Amino acid sequence: MANCPLCKKINYPIIWENNLFRLVLINDQKFPGYCRLETIEHIKELSDLEDQTQIDLIKKIVQTEKVLRDLLNPDKINIASLGNMTPHLHWHIIPRYRNDSHFPNSIWGEALRAPLKEFNTNEEESFINKCKSYLD
Amino acid sequence: MANCPLCKKINYPIIWENNLFRLVLINDQKFPGYCRLETIEHIKELSDLEDQTQIDLIKKIVQTEKVLRDLLNPDKINIASLGNMTPHLHWHIIPRYRNDSHFPNSIWGEALRAPLKEFNTNEEESFINKCKSYLD
Repeated sequence: MANCPLCKKINYPIIWENNLFRLVLINDQKFPGYCRLETIEHIKELSDLEDQTQIDLIKKIVQTEKVLRDLLNPDKINIASLGNMTPHLHWHIIPRYRNDSHFPNSIWGEALRAPLKEFNTNEEESFINKCKSYLD
Repeated sequence: MANCPLCKKINYPIIWENNLFRLVLINDQKFPGYCRLETIEHIKELSDLEDQTQIDLIKKIVQTEKVLRDLLNPDKINIASLGNMTPHLHWHIIPRYRNDSHFPNSIWGEALRAPLKEFNTNEEESFINKCKSYLD
């Protein structure tokens, strides 16, 4: 799909990938540790995946959630598959904190305070390396 | 959990339930067919569920998505588990349309146009009955 940004070159650091999915770190973030799990294939909806791939997907979402909880100790995890602009299946997996810019709003809602600090380059590299040890 | 709205009396029509999950129709909606799948037990995060229950959950989300696609033919399905205000695991499963009030924004983002019409009582009853025939 020539016009799909998720089918083009990946702009984000890849934490993990296999032949079905890719997990990237959304590093232009107000939300440190904000990850996105995306299908390699251009697939629109969850129910378009094979049954076993749906199970593989939820297992990978859970694994990512566990990494984020263990490494970053967020107050809540937010998970969402929207894709209204980019109908190529992708899941936002976002560690949320009571003092982040939008809490308790969704990250797509109204900002309520100043953003948290992004990871710097060293923190990002360290985070990705720690994540890798969790993901099979 | 005395103060948790999802542990209290259910205010929404129940489409389906078993001993683990309940699927309700969010009927005070700008988004006709907006469903919510919630755990019966007060559980905070997806990764707090047993492994098999995580699989049961994704299967039920997929089943709900298929119902919505078959019955309502939306332009996109949005799925999200946020719970920043109500940390009792629940999944929003929302049929989206190019002409709905927020598209392509998330339903938690800025409204861009007038809302679609809600289901009336007859449409709601008919929708719930049709859904029931899909859900095992």
